[in-house]
Amino acid sequence: MRDIAVFSGSAHPELAAEICDHLDVPLHPVRVDRFANDCLEVQLQANCRERDVFLVQPLVPPVQENLVELLLMLDAAKGASAARTTVVMSHYAYARSDKKDEPRISIGGRLVADLLTAAGAQRVLAMTLHSPQVHGFFSVPVDHLHALRELADHFRGYDLSNTVVVSPDLGNAKEASAFARRLGISVAAGAKQRFSDDRVVISDVIGEVEGRDIIVLDDEIARGSTVFELLDRLRERGAGKARVACTHGLFADGALERLQAHEDVLEIVCTNTVPLGKEKWVPKLKVLSIAPALAEAVRRIHNGESVSALFH
Amino acid sequence: MRDIAVFSGSAHPELAAEICDHLDVPLHPVRVDRFANDCLEVQLQANCRERDVFLVQPLVPPVQENLVELLLMLDAAKGASAARTTVVMSHYAYARSDKKDEPRISIGGRLVADLLTAAGAQRVLAMTLHSPQVHGFFSVPVDHLHALRELADHFRGYDLSNTVVVSPDLGNAKEASAFARRLGISVAAGAKQRFSDDRVVISDVIGEVEGRDIIVLDDEIARGSTVFELLDRLRERGAGKARVACTHGLFADGALERLQAHEDVLEIVCTNTVPLGKEKWVPKLKVLSIAPALAEAVRRIHNGESVSALFH
Amino acid sequence: MRDIAVFSGSAHPELAAEICDHLDVPLHPVRVDRFANDCLEVQLQANCRERDVFLVQPLVPPVQENLVELLLMLDAAKGASAARTTVVMSHYAYARSDKKDEPRISIGGRLVADLLTAAGAQRVLAMTLHSPQVHGFFSVPVDHLHALRELADHFRGYDLSNTVVVSPDLGNAKEASAFARRLGISVAAGAKQRFSDDRVVISDVIGEVEGRDIIVLDDEIARGSTVFELLDRLRERGAGKARVACTHGLFADGALERLQAHEDVLEIVCTNTVPLGKEKWVPKLKVLSIAPALAEAVRRIHNGESVSALFH
Amino acid sequence: MRDIAVFSGSAHPELAAEICDHLDVPLHPVRVDRFANDCLEVQLQANCRERDVFLVQPLVPPVQENLVELLLMLDAAKGASAARTTVVMSHYAYARSDKKDEPRISIGGRLVADLLTAAGAQRVLAMTLHSPQVHGFFSVPVDHLHALRELADHFRGYDLSNTVVVSPDLGNAKEASAFARRLGISVAAGAKQRFSDDRVVISDVIGEVEGRDIIVLDDEIARGSTVFELLDRLRERGAGKARVACTHGLFADGALERLQAHEDVLEIVCTNTVPLGKEKWVPKLKVLSIAPALAEAVRRIHNGESVSALFH
Amino acid sequence: MRDIAVFSGSAHPELAAEICDHLDVPLHPVRVDRFANDCLEVQLQANCRERDVFLVQPLVPPVQENLVELLLMLDAAKGASAARTTVVMSHYAYARSDKKDEPRISIGGRLVADLLTAAGAQRVLAMTLHSPQVHGFFSVPVDHLHALRELADHFRGYDLSNTVVVSPDLGNAKEASAFARRLGISVAAGAKQRFSDDRVVISDVIGEVEGRDIIVLDDEIARGSTVFELLDRLRERGAGKARVACTHGLFADGALERLQAHEDVLEIVCTNTVPLGKEKWVPKLKVLSIAPALAEAVRRIHNGESVSALFH
Amino acid sequence: MRDIAVFSGSAHPELAAEICDHLDVPLHPVRVDRFANDCLEVQLQANCRERDVFLVQPLVPPVQENLVELLLMLDAAKGASAARTTVVMSHYAYARSDKKDEPRISIGGRLVADLLTAAGAQRVLAMTLHSPQVHGFFSVPVDHLHALRELADHFRGYDLSNTVVVSPDLGNAKEASAFARRLGISVAAGAKQRFSDDRVVISDVIGEVEGRDIIVLDDEIARGSTVFELLDRLRERGAGKARVACTHGLFADGALERLQAHEDVLEIVCTNTVPLGKEKWVPKLKVLSIAPALAEAVRRIHNGESVSALFH
Repeated sequence: MRDIAVFSGSAHPELAAEICDHLDVPLHPVRVDRFANDCLEVQLQANCRERDVFLVQPLVPPVQENLVELLLMLDAAKGASAARTTVVMSHYAYARSDKKDEPRISIGGRLVADLLTAAGAQRVLAMTLHSPQVHGFFSVPVDHLHALRELADHFRGYDLSNTVVVSPDLGNAKEASAFARRLGISVAAGAKQRFSDDRVVISDVIGEVEGRDIIVLDDEIARGSTVFELLDRLRERGAGKARVACTHGLFADGALERLQAHEDVLEIVCTNTVPLGKEKWVPKLKVLSIAPALAEAVRRIHNGESVSALFH
Repeated sequence: MRDIAVFSGSAHPELAAEICDHLDVPLHPVRVDRFANDCLEVQLQANCRERDVFLVQPLVPPVQENLVELLLMLDAAKGASAARTTVVMSHYAYARSDKKDEPRISIGGRLVADLLTAAGAQRVLAMTLHSPQVHGFFSVPVDHLHALRELADHFRGYDLSNTVVVSPDLGNAKEASAFARRLGISVAAGAKQRFSDDRVVISDVIGEVEGRDIIVLDDEIARGSTVFELLDRLRERGAGKARVACTHGLFADGALERLQAHEDVLEIVCTNTVPLGKEKWVPKLKVLSIAPALAEAVRRIHNGESVSALFH
Repeated sequence: MRDIAVFSGSAHPELAAEICDHLDVPLHPVRVDRFANDCLEVQLQANCRERDVFLVQPLVPPVQENLVELLLMLDAAKGASAARTTVVMSHYAYARSDKKDEPRISIGGRLVADLLTAAGAQRVLAMTLHSPQVHGFFSVPVDHLHALRELADHFRGYDLSNTVVVSPDLGNAKEASAFARRLGISVAAGAKQRFSDDRVVISDVIGEVEGRDIIVLDDEIARGSTVFELLDRLRERGAGKARVACTHGLFADGALERLQAHEDVLEIVCTNTVPLGKEKWVPKLKVLSIAPALAEAVRRIHNGESVSALFH
Repeated sequence: MRDIAVFSGSAHPELAAEICDHLDVPLHPVRVDRFANDCLEVQLQANCRERDVFLVQPLVPPVQENLVELLLMLDAAKGASAARTTVVMSHYAYARSDKKDEPRISIGGRLVADLLTAAGAQRVLAMTLHSPQVHGFFSVPVDHLHALRELADHFRGYDLSNTVVVSPDLGNAKEASAFARRLGISVAAGAKQRFSDDRVVISDVIGEVEGRDIIVLDDEIARGSTVFELLDRLRERGAGKARVACTHGLFADGALERLQAHEDVLEIVCTNTVPLGKEKWVPKLKVLSIAPALAEAVRRIHNGESVSALFH
Repeated sequence: MRDIAVFSGSAHPELAAEICDHLDVPLHPVRVDRFANDCLEVQLQANCRERDVFLVQPLVPPVQENLVELLLMLDAAKGASAARTTVVMSHYAYARSDKKDEPRISIGGRLVADLLTAAGAQRVLAMTLHSPQVHGFFSVPVDHLHALRELADHFRGYDLSNTVVVSPDLGNAKEASAFARRLGISVAAGAKQRFSDDRVVISDVIGEVEGRDIIVLDDEIARGSTVFELLDRLRERGAGKARVACTHGLFADGALERLQAHEDVLEIVCTNTVPLGKEKWVPKLKVLSIAPALAEAVRRIHNGESVSALFH
Repeated sequence: MRDIAVFSGSAHPELAAEICDHLDVPLHPVRVDRFANDCLEVQLQANCRERDVFLVQPLVPPVQENLVELLLMLDAAKGASAARTTVVMSHYAYARSDKKDEPRISIGGRLVADLLTAAGAQRVLAMTLHSPQVHGFFSVPVDHLHALRELADHFRGYDLSNTVVVSPDLGNAKEASAFARRLGISVAAGAKQRFSDDRVVISDVIGEVEGRDIIVLDDEIARGSTVFELLDRLRERGAGKARVACTHGLFADGALERLQAHEDVLEIVCTNTVPLGKEKWVPKLKVLSIAPALAEAVRRIHNGESVSALFH
């Protein structure tokens, strides 16, 4: 079989290293030079020829730098005769730009998918895309993982007899429900409504929450506004303390510190799809690793085994 | 300016004729032959050369026949040197196939978008796509209209002082809210939740409905299961009689008859994006025409005027 | 070597099953759902990842349904990471739409070839295309088989000492001649002439037919008009009884019954490139299987062996 | 309207000049340099920007030189911002390579069509392609003219009361029949049969020829073997003297001289789709100009008028 | 004629404004939002439909931000039905990444050209590309301007009777020579040699420089190493004081301050292809505007007039 | 592993045969037919199916014939189901057409790269391209070899203690310097300057040449003008006798004879990238074979080993 060759860009080398550990293959170095005129040049520093190349690079801040670097890595891999190039994109930030709700705006989620293809991406391994339709923006095969198993494994350690999973948004309720089923508990959901263009409120919470311990589950937390709004609603309805869980812990604009400071929040759980330097960790934070899942998916992609079987 | 040339396939010639009436241009004939081996051949029966060609063909049942006929019409227009070819697709049935929620399934919404482009479509004029992300499946410009103005104009004829708009689904609440604002009334929404793979229920209704007159608003009604479920919830909550409105009145499997028979339903309102032979009309049904809106959009596309301005 | 995975659409599952029997591989199931709005969804129900996927689907009536189903199967196979996807299209109905003999018509044979490629077809295995130029409509490799060996083997069972092969059309005479050589007998041909746009006649028969037993050979029989015309000419010239043979037995508009009823016809021989339910068989009909030939071609394609060598 | 700009390559400048005369537009010069390493460089020597550019270049001997020159002209026109580029290809030699009748051969007719598109051709204006299917090899619009009107006008000058049109080949009989109808006379056809790979014979002539004056009509004459074979058959059947007509007068390997010397041949008529230096003309030869027809087609393409209407 | 619509990204709005002033058209606003996850969204805030759209955005630091913003602007323009989209890229930083002189590196100049096309660029207006071959990296038409006229006009104000133009590099000597001819003076050139991978020296100066006033001319100055090396050589050869001129004044790493401080440098002349905030200007610096030239090129592109004629 | 299959076109069968000898694989025959109308047809005469196909065909005179033949070979290989097709193009003549230095000219180097891809080339193995940027013209991977090792090995046989390598052009100095380092000697370079459009002179020689033995090194010699000019300069500067070396020995317009006759030239050394019939050899000529290097590169490409490692 063609050998595997894994490279990491600048976005999240820790994740890449951990994936390689699980695969028991070396993480090959990449040289990224920045010239006096601010242009980047990428050199993959191991033979790619006829290799099954995996480029680990989530689109996380600085997004534009990481995106262009990834495009250059793809170009280098193609020019270096890679047999196949798969982008391991544990977070795809541009997935949120998925519709044209105003005239003359870009649809970044589709554009970036096309750019990756133009630069040479032949497959994508993604994790918890913001909306499932984004899968259809790619003209190459996408393996779309989620982190529900990792998150569920974490919560199984607790007494869940009086606990309910709450999705901040009914749009996300299908995933929250699947998560609750894994834990054998019930589910509730906030009714997030956009009544005018500039006002988003959670007007109600569907399901029993009074007197219950809470696990809030969302796909990502950036500024955390929705979560804080949900916590208000939960308190009004007499819910107990909450553990806040998400796949993508972006934590922008001090969200992590504000969650740490919130008295109803017992714990903050996220995965390492997005890099979060240990110096930024707060005491309530628990970061779970999805590297084993990504490594297993890479192994199956490389060996031609079913990836969907991973979820069953 | 290049002349305009409008053709209609077999899917909805009445709509095409009505659009042409509003534009004051002729509807050019199309010959569709079916050979002994069941293959179709299409002939556009007017000069297309350097014309701005519009092909009116919603993807409605029989969907596969209408789709292939449309692809052949596009091929014929391209081969006949059309300057530009726009598909006027008042209903895009495959928009519902917009994600890959099971392994090894087709994503029809993206595939058909690519097929239309491969056959020569250079623009699409669509109406109320099932999810806004489907816009991003097309690699050619899409003008995406809705029918809220037409629907609102209809309801302005009633005393709405005690009326509330209800969306069966919070996912659709943004549109319902915009619709309610047009009428100066309030909005509510069903909390549609998918707790397991095969059970969809409306577990709650967010907002005040008790004692109110109801306008149910959805994007499309096929079998109508969601609407009937919502009507049950509304009755439980003491709501008054309902008028049921949607853009795409597909009315499959006797849905129209069952709505007609439902004692809480005062009126059924849809538009003519989908053909509905008059012989199928029921007494409670009111069909509004979106031909003027489509005609105005065609005129603006042809003249290079802003289409988004239509909505403001 | 990558494993093989064979799937069949709805068009001709019997042929697919027979091919798989010869290959001694399983025929994997395909789920085809039709939604309330008449859209199809396809799920390939076996792992395709890095497999050498063969999709058996001739374009036979209902052609549009079978075509769109095939396109969706191709999309599903591509999305499911098939290593290579080959369409086994034992009959390609749109091959007859191969030229633009009127203004502003579609050239369906080229369009459908492009659609198959757009949907993900990487190779095509075809049988007796209506004109050899259709091969050039495809931008992917085509293996183009014929059924002369199977047809010849059948006729070798007869006393052919006084028999002549007659092609209804000089355009097809090269194939008829090759067929006659296989049987060691002589060949004749009708002179089919299109003197005006709506009148096709066989004005003459070239070669000795008087007092001879006849084997009429054509590529396909749909309504059978040409064959009946030829039988008239043969009778005028004092020919004996005829056996009528073709590759593609479409038999539209009662052609099979009329051939059965024709007193000059001793036997009707076709292959199973096109499905023909046993309930439609008439006593004079003999259906030969090309499954062994297709299976052998699939095996050679899969193993990288010469397919052209099959014919020598 | 965008201005027209006509350029000629080296293949047939006389034809280009004549087309320009009819259009009353200048023929712009093209500089073709051949470097020491035998590479060509092309410079279009007039502004192409936003012009409707027509490149007159039939693929005639030296075919490879003329083809590469044409591809370079297309590249130059694209780079020079032509609004549209149409190839006026009065003869497309590679049209004869239209099928794959042996393993591992090129299909030049399709390949060259793709090369023209890759180099920037946006339309093609062709004349009497060898087989009508070749039209479908192009992915850009093709206007496909024939020269029957010009040829018929020539023969109307004769007493045709005892004349019959003879096609050497039943495959060409449809065109011969259309030609005969224009002249109000009858038609006959040779039955050209390919009984083995290396032997082509005309085994019969269908239709009345005895004692008749003959007009032999073919699409092109290269070595003329078919015509000479037909003349033998006609003599055997007691036909009178013949006038030999074709669209493309390639006249390779002394064919023109041998026709001149043939005692049954009264006249040789062709058009100027292919250059034929006056020094090569023989006394029996009459060359008709299709420049007026091509000029009219160019004018209509440029003005967006129907080209098919030219034929009715 | 289609109207023109000019937009500017964040890279160089001053240049865009100046171009619009010269064209006497408005500079339309662009809204660029940066979301919490660092993704950009672009909205073109004027109707683009059927307009001739020009997007002014040089690739200058921060290059990656400006590049992605430009790609999003192109996507927005395409989605908004622009008739044609031209990128006005007064500086193309990635042009320096034009070859693969080490294994497995990216060729950024070609990749970015492909990305621009993938995003919807239909033409490029560039200025003094680092090497002329970069033109060939684009698959869309490029108008390639230079600034020699502007630079020459500036120096005509001086007494040039004892002045020589010196190119730091013989590779650039053709341009320096053209520049000298414009001024009617002679030219010299440094012999820049790369004897090992990490050592670049100017080993000699070809041409008379002793006792002469010097104009150093280069295409761009980033860190200025080459210029400082040349100044050393000139001093060794007894040359007089120097004026240093270039098209692209990038001035990285304090280059401007070091030139200001260099005692042999009388003046530093560049153009405004690259933004240089006035707060960074040093006393010896003179910035010439190429906005009039770009505006004239835009006007000619829009009107379909020859751009090459600008240089003669 | 997939088998290898090597074919040669008409351009340089001797080189192909020698490569196959080194690889110990057969050189498969190719049938090239030229029809009466001057069209070519190519048949690859060995099974290509799933083979790793290498087509040896430098673009040498007659360039257009060899180019079209190569394109047809690529088409045949694609149609014959080659697993991968690599063009072994030991000389790429069109590389010299790499920029647009006049308006409305073709950029042949980019166009031909695109044509090769359109016809089916998936990789290119090239040798000493005229400028390194030409690598970026290809959208498929290129392995770019040079012949410095072969040339150096040859000169190691001489006493080089008083020898200097001279590049006629500073643009080529990097390569000359690398060559000199291999031999452990010093380097000099001519300062080739293009002061006006029609005058190219070598104005100076940088580096010590007086009294030294000379090795002139260039990438190719066509008419040899630059070399003769350099020899004049060297004589003026008191240099000794010269050995003239290049990779591509095109030797047009009697260059070889004039070099033979030049009294300062001791030896002429080139490689066999370009065919040079032995009947053209002159006594001073020495032709080195790069077949071993190309064979080793083919072997590594086939086996997926690093090709860049060849150079270290």
